[in-house]
Amino acid sequence: MAQKPSIPKGTRDFGHEEMARRNYIFDTIRSVFRLYGFNQIETPAMENLSTLMGKYGEEGDKLLFKILNSGDWLRGADRTMIDSGDYVHLTPKVSEKGLRYDLTVPFARFVVQHRDELTMPFKRFQIQPVWRADRPQKGRYREFYQCDADVVGSDSLINEIELLQIIDEVFARLGIRITIKLNNRKVLAGIAEMIGAPDKLTDITVAIDKIDKIGLDKVKEELTERGLTDDAIARLEPVLAIGGDTKTRLNALKEILAGNETGLLGVAELQTVINGAENLGMRAEVELDSSLARGLNYYTGTIIEVKARDVEIGSITGGGRYDNLTGVFGMPGLSGVGISFGADRIYDVLNQLDLYPAEATSSTEVMFANFGDQEASAAMAMMKTMREGGIACEIYPDVAKMKKQMTYANAKSIPYVALVGEEEMKQGKLTLKSMANGEQTLVTPQEAIRMVAGH
Amino acid sequence: MAQKPSIPKGTRDFGHEEMARRNYIFDTIRSVFRLYGFNQIETPAMENLSTLMGKYGEEGDKLLFKILNSGDWLRGADRTMIDSGDYVHLTPKVSEKGLRYDLTVPFARFVVQHRDELTMPFKRFQIQPVWRADRPQKGRYREFYQCDADVVGSDSLINEIELLQIIDEVFARLGIRITIKLNNRKVLAGIAEMIGAPDKLTDITVAIDKIDKIGLDKVKEELTERGLTDDAIARLEPVLAIGGDTKTRLNALKEILAGNETGLLGVAELQTVINGAENLGMRAEVELDSSLARGLNYYTGTIIEVKARDVEIGSITGGGRYDNLTGVFGMPGLSGVGISFGADRIYDVLNQLDLYPAEATSSTEVMFANFGDQEASAAMAMMKTMREGGIACEIYPDVAKMKKQMTYANAKSIPYVALVGEEEMKQGKLTLKSMANGEQTLVTPQEAIRMVAGH
Repeated sequence: MAQKPSIPKGTRDFGHEEMARRNYIFDTIRSVFRLYGFNQIETPAMENLSTLMGKYGEEGDKLLFKILNSGDWLRGADRTMIDSGDYVHLTPKVSEKGLRYDLTVPFARFVVQHRDELTMPFKRFQIQPVWRADRPQKGRYREFYQCDADVVGSDSLINEIELLQIIDEVFARLGIRITIKLNNRKVLAGIAEMIGAPDKLTDITVAIDKIDKIGLDKVKEELTERGLTDDAIARLEPVLAIGGDTKTRLNALKEILAGNETGLLGVAELQTVINGAENLGMRAEVELDSSLARGLNYYTGTIIEVKARDVEIGSITGGGRYDNLTGVFGMPGLSGVGISFGADRIYDVLNQLDLYPAEATSSTEVMFANFGDQEASAAMAMMKTMREGGIACEIYPDVAKMKKQMTYANAKSIPYVALVGEEEMKQGKLTLKSMANGEQTLVTPQEAIRMVAGH
Repeated sequence: MAQKPSIPKGTRDFGHEEMARRNYIFDTIRSVFRLYGFNQIETPAMENLSTLMGKYGEEGDKLLFKILNSGDWLRGADRTMIDSGDYVHLTPKVSEKGLRYDLTVPFARFVVQHRDELTMPFKRFQIQPVWRADRPQKGRYREFYQCDADVVGSDSLINEIELLQIIDEVFARLGIRITIKLNNRKVLAGIAEMIGAPDKLTDITVAIDKIDKIGLDKVKEELTERGLTDDAIARLEPVLAIGGDTKTRLNALKEILAGNETGLLGVAELQTVINGAENLGMRAEVELDSSLARGLNYYTGTIIEVKARDVEIGSITGGGRYDNLTGVFGMPGLSGVGISFGADRIYDVLNQLDLYPAEATSSTEVMFANFGDQEASAAMAMMKTMREGGIACEIYPDVAKMKKQMTYANAKSIPYVALVGEEEMKQGKLTLKSMANGEQTLVTPQEAIRMVAGH
């Protein structure tokens, strides 16, 4: 036999059990998005490289999968570049398209391209794969799904509150207990101003983002390395030390930021969002975390991060408010807020906690055994009735030994086997055998529907 | 403003209405597949070029989208090939991966790669996009979805019968009246033997496949060009002239093929499949069409093609039995049968016949107007109740002029607007306004759920 074929490293096949579980996650998220008036869109897998390049930093440009131009792709290639091995500058000569790297840039492109058709505020969600030429490793793939919801064209904090409700509802439906961590970029900016280092905002946020991982001392070391004065670091310490419940934290921040307009605005926004959500009743724990920065310069207001409470794993959902999604495509000043569910990690959490409901992973409910042509014909008529009653059934297509047929039913975890032999045919009935306890019952197809549906 | 960004030619964005319609089609097909015990799988968008190349003919190889190797892709490139402009042989040096071209080859690769984990017979379905660097034109895209179901590892004709039932059920649910055309490759082979031209099977099938389009005379001309003798053509004519109902056609074929083993086996298979399906009750018209060849050398038994009866359009579903899906990957002798729903054409048919049910295209059911912070808070509490009752609602997030808010509701075709002002807040009620007839009713959120759900 020839060598087994394989798939590119970092990519995955999904068999039917994984698919059923993934569909359960996506279906749950999708139904909640819909309840909140979000509409689904899809964009093409390929985007023009002019759309993608320069949006993810230099490193991101390298990680884009690029499509070789069709036909004579070598024609436009510059000989001097070839001779000097300058593949970086040669790439745009032989490739015009790339695979999408995330859903955010294609969404921004979509909004600008279709702005005349869109009604603002525009609430969309999108569940599609993205591709990154990252070095594959455990939990990191070159093809994976993102699952984003955004509202653009409105700066009302109602949007933030509703996104928190969505997060709360999705994880309640999935049965995952979560903590929602909140912060606000304006608070971080206020702090940077307060300690006299407004130009060091990025350094400060990157450093304090690590406080959970590396601890206070290392963060202080890093801040020194990043050029903060001892004085500035000393003035930052009370912020890093903030603790207690949300109300205490908000009050502490208000005190620390007294007189700083930006910072206080951030605190007020946090207060509105947290109160708004709590008043509607949250099952999730909502926590103000002033060290939350999500390492990004992208967010301008609310910052959201979700952690599972019963599993050690990174954030399973994140998001925030941004001011300039579409500026890079020539449409400035469009404010928006969005969240992104981490499907792969949610999948892992559900697996670890064993939280998949039986319906989510089952497929065929009844397998009819095949005893021969006549019996099979009778069985197929009964299956028609049962399928009309919503029961997923199948018949073993070949007349094989009983043992082989039962092995098949077992391997597919089919809960019931139906036997239709001579006696059953006479009576227009089937013998329904439960694979769980071996019990056999002689029933009509209608009775079988009720038995299986009640299972 | 900068130039509007765009997407690669031949690709599409799907806005929320198109998405809702496409989801309706895919959800319908998916639920029927499930009732018949088919399990969903997904494979990666990228496959190794060694998996894809040589599977679709020389033309197909050209139409594959190829991914440029990451990093210094120029490193492995052969200077001599570069200098001679030999991009064809250079391509494999700079590209190892390509985008999938159909779902069949990745499925075959999947079966071989996972053969030790799979239980045969293996019934899978797969709904994913494929990519072809075809010249874009009306109705032909460079990215489009395929929607395939196959059973491999069983040569029982029960599989064919069930696939016909699936086709019948899917189109009944969609409300599309169809004709299912059937033929059998063995019948075609028998005919080629009968007329003394067994080596001309491909020429004969290609030619008679065109009989509907170009007529008998042109087909005869083409057969002559393809090297068939006048005698052979004369003996073929009775086959081309077969008419009447299915029973008459089967009998005619039996007579013509008397003494030809292959051909008679094909007729018997057709008879079993057609009788089996008809006995179970088909709403579709089932028709034996001995000119049906689907231009492919791929099928070895049953050939299936579905036409819409009320719209002029090509086939909207097709499929058949094959013997050697996985041989090319070193696993010979695996028989299978499959069908493929043409989602883009089904979409067009449903649009032309205006067959989308209201639920399939609606999104938000109630928009709450926003009169200010306090009113919005009260509204959000009511929305929480209504969402728990399964009603999709949203609040206009900003405190804007009433006209602007109503324009938004209209643009999104939202059927109800809810007004919560001072009076409503006092009573814990909302004024529900029907956008269809302007009627306003003061109701509790619970009453509103019933009114909207009953809509």
